[in-house]
Amino acid sequence: MPAIQIKPYTRRVHFYETDQMGIVHHSNYIRWFEESRVDFMEQIGYGYNRVSDLGIDFAVLGVTVDYKQTVRFNDVVEIHLTIGEITSVRMTIKYKILRNCVLCATGETRHCAILTQKQKVVSLQKEIPKLFDLFSSFCKRQ
Amino acid sequence: MPAIQIKPYTRRVHFYETDQMGIVHHSNYIRWFEESRVDFMEQIGYGYNRVSDLGIDFAVLGVTVDYKQTVRFNDVVEIHLTIGEITSVRMTIKYKILRNCVLCATGETRHCAILTQKQKVVSLQKEIPKLFDLFSSFCKRQ
Amino acid sequence: MPAIQIKPYTRRVHFYETDQMGIVHHSNYIRWFEESRVDFMEQIGYGYNRVSDLGIDFAVLGVTVDYKQTVRFNDVVEIHLTIGEITSVRMTIKYKILRNCVLCATGETRHCAILTQKQKVVSLQKEIPKLFDLFSSFCKRQ
Amino acid sequence: MPAIQIKPYTRRVHFYETDQMGIVHHSNYIRWFEESRVDFMEQIGYGYNRVSDLGIDFAVLGVTVDYKQTVRFNDVVEIHLTIGEITSVRMTIKYKILRNCVLCATGETRHCAILTQKQKVVSLQKEIPKLFDLFSSFCKRQ
Repeated sequence: MPAIQIKPYTRRVHFYETDQMGIVHHSNYIRWFEESRVDFMEQIGYGYNRVSDLGIDFAVLGVTVDYKQTVRFNDVVEIHLTIGEITSVRMTIKYKILRNCVLCATGETRHCAILTQKQKVVSLQKEIPKLFDLFSSFCKRQ
Repeated sequence: MPAIQIKPYTRRVHFYETDQMGIVHHSNYIRWFEESRVDFMEQIGYGYNRVSDLGIDFAVLGVTVDYKQTVRFNDVVEIHLTIGEITSVRMTIKYKILRNCVLCATGETRHCAILTQKQKVVSLQKEIPKLFDLFSSFCKRQ
Repeated sequence: MPAIQIKPYTRRVHFYETDQMGIVHHSNYIRWFEESRVDFMEQIGYGYNRVSDLGIDFAVLGVTVDYKQTVRFNDVVEIHLTIGEITSVRMTIKYKILRNCVLCATGETRHCAILTQKQKVVSLQKEIPKLFDLFSSFCKRQ
Repeated sequence: MPAIQIKPYTRRVHFYETDQMGIVHHSNYIRWFEESRVDFMEQIGYGYNRVSDLGIDFAVLGVTVDYKQTVRFNDVVEIHLTIGEITSVRMTIKYKILRNCVLCATGETRHCAILTQKQKVVSLQKEIPKLFDLFSSFCKRQ
């Protein structure tokens, strides 16, 4: 079980992320999920750049967001990320977006590892066993 | 049954919609869904501006996208929209994104009508019965 | 002098391009300029993809926008593009954004050709003489 | 002369801010300028929300960016902001973007204060004298 204590990813809402309804445009949540994935990988000690440098990327297979409370300019949101499921070729990541402890959205992204050049699906377990084990350890302990 | 024949929404992929993987960033599909909703409303003769002018907006309650094929800069995509389900307070819209007849993504958005100022959910059927009937007619005939 | 008559690039403003001031966020104009450059290259018969396929890209060296009138959701804007200046290594493109014949913004972008892989500046005149001549012909005749 | 020592605005480059050239898309710099303006106002003790709450907004009259070095995913950039010029109705803000002490871009934005509802230009000096004085004090001391 990993000793690392993951901190939620925190960020402030930018003006350009709002729309004419006066709230954050819903498409931005997908981008915040990505920001929190990158931050998570930094925290577990295996930054996304190290994956890219191996010629590998994580393709996005699917995205789901459920919007519960609107979020506004200058709000500070916390994104809590957990590994939902992981096999040698697929991984599900789950997200909760909170503002002052109020749940504003939940979501999920599904991924597979691919060879960037060939856009071919590969086994993360075979290609980067260390990262696979890291992700898996976070999956189990939740 | 409405006589209107809805055309798929067609648009070209912009350079700024790509990311360093050389493909369209996945968050943009959510924006294309929105573009196609606006286009659909124009086609059925009840543009989104008419809704806004009544002090009403369609809040987004949820979004789902399943990515099947990558899409690239300058590709022409067709977005086929259908009304999945509609009640007096909720509506589900379904999307298919195609490039040269190849299915690249499917998705769904869920909405409710709100009073823009108060951010309060209202019945579309009561507030804009004509638009509710229009949406419903497209739901039934599919 | 080229026989081609360039049409202004026309597009509708998307909902997600607005911000909480109820107008188009100013950063989007830069993206529209890019859209119109791509469209211009299609119109002159030398699409951007052909440039990319040669391992060449147009880097952006500078951007200027002067905002004159606000633009709103669903407005139709026309972007008029002209080649301001061109040498073997540099090119300036000028833009006017109009809505119903009202000038809403003017702008300028400055570019050079680069080898995509090495990010090294090259002479467009040497690398793609045909395209250089095309651009030059549009510069002269204005 | 104000005692406040302004810290440069620091942020990491997001994956979705890159384009298929493998670098940050040039339109994002405009958004980073905005982020740094908002941060600056927080630092001087007069957050943007306080301006909005008075029914006032800062319209953008013009933008200039000069790109000097490319910036990539996960780079940490520092944005140094200074008040270039200020009169009762107009203000110029200047920016320098650095990555590891290397100057990557410079830029400028021009603004005026407007009544949000009427989109009418007003004198910042008359409407919010305290903020005008704050901005002015930062202008003088540079």
